Amino acid sequence: MQMQLLMDRIRRDGQVKSGNILKVDSFLNHQIDVALLEEIGKEFHRQFTGKKVTKILTIEASGIAIACFAARYFECPVLFAKKSKTLNIAGDVYRSTVESFTHKNTSEIIVSKQFLSSEDRVLIIDDFLANGKAIMGLSGLVKQAGAELVGAGVVIEKGFQEGGNRIREMGIDLHSLAIVDSMDPESGIVFRREG
Amino acid sequence: MQMQLLMDRIRRDGQVKSGNILKVDSFLNHQIDVALLEEIGKEFHRQFTGKKVTKILTIEASGIAIACFAARYFECPVLFAKKSKTLNIAGDVYRSTVESFTHKNTSEIIVSKQFLSSEDRVLIIDDFLANGKAIMGLSGLVKQAGAELVGAGVVIEKGFQEGGNRIREMGIDLHSLAIVDSMDPESGIVFRREG
Repeated sequence: MQMQLLMDRIRRDGQVKSGNILKVDSFLNHQIDVALLEEIGKEFHRQFTGKKVTKILTIEASGIAIACFAARYFECPVLFAKKSKTLNIAGDVYRSTVESFTHKNTSEIIVSKQFLSSEDRVLIIDDFLANGKAIMGLSGLVKQAGAELVGAGVVIEKGFQEGGNRIREMGIDLHSLAIVDSMDPESGIVFRREG
Repeated sequence: MQMQLLMDRIRRDGQVKSGNILKVDSFLNHQIDVALLEEIGKEFHRQFTGKKVTKILTIEASGIAIACFAARYFECPVLFAKKSKTLNIAGDVYRSTVESFTHKNTSEIIVSKQFLSSEDRVLIIDDFLANGKAIMGLSGLVKQAGAELVGAGVVIEKGFQEGGNRIREMGIDLHSLAIVDSMDPESGIVFRREG
């Protein structure tokens, strides 16, 4: 189920730019409205309650805040995949690749093996779902660890791109808090099942 | 004042590596213990209470979670500086430069001008303080905006490096929740004013 408070906020403060870019950097991924994120975290918990989530997996940087607020309600740790190998992550890592729609580039993402195991029941959380590559990359890490993927929660799904269908066809339990079916700098945003 | 719960955790789960690297990625900057971060947020609020903070400024990626948990108590937004110009940040930005001790590289950091103004009273939050370059870079952004810098809070200060003294000499009100005065892979960690 979509989240009315969030859709209202996107409609009020989101900016549609050419190239299918939806800017929500006044409240979600540059400046962060923590009161809104608490509600978003609560909503993810409602949608995945009873799933015995042991770890929330996300990807730096804009997924971190959202994942943290969800984790408060699941009472589990957050693990964020890093986009490149830094000096500080030594030792064994799981690796995957993500192609970003927004940034038009491809990154290797990694997590330390010690923080993801076959005992884990993992919920993936991210800010945007466009081509689905971030969730696919993250689910690759979960698979390598032999962990159970219990689902994926995204704040904003671009319903007019192919990612949502792909993820659902893979059998992943996907919940999007707002699904944009079309958007245009002139005529604005249409959410799914609204019109 | 330092935070006993945090120092205990660093002593238990932190790993000292050669090259003056302190790995705390099991609870702070790769995997995140959200219950600990709530306490850290509360402690920052205690140390900067009454300062009328209107915005918490941090830097992606590992500062974001900490800043968010602090912001809950200050009831203000978080703004995180981005490390490189992405397609999604258009328009006017403030720019600064940060040299990372951990990553051995230099990044340009930016924030959108629309989210930082001369009306703001800014608290800078970060995970580590080593050479002080991150805080100096962030305080440069605050200055460009004509905002008031009310202070800086860091989780772990490497007291044997020059950053803490530099920041204090600049007149910035700095609070570090744990100050490591020396560390060694063999003999472990010594916190300030402990021995």
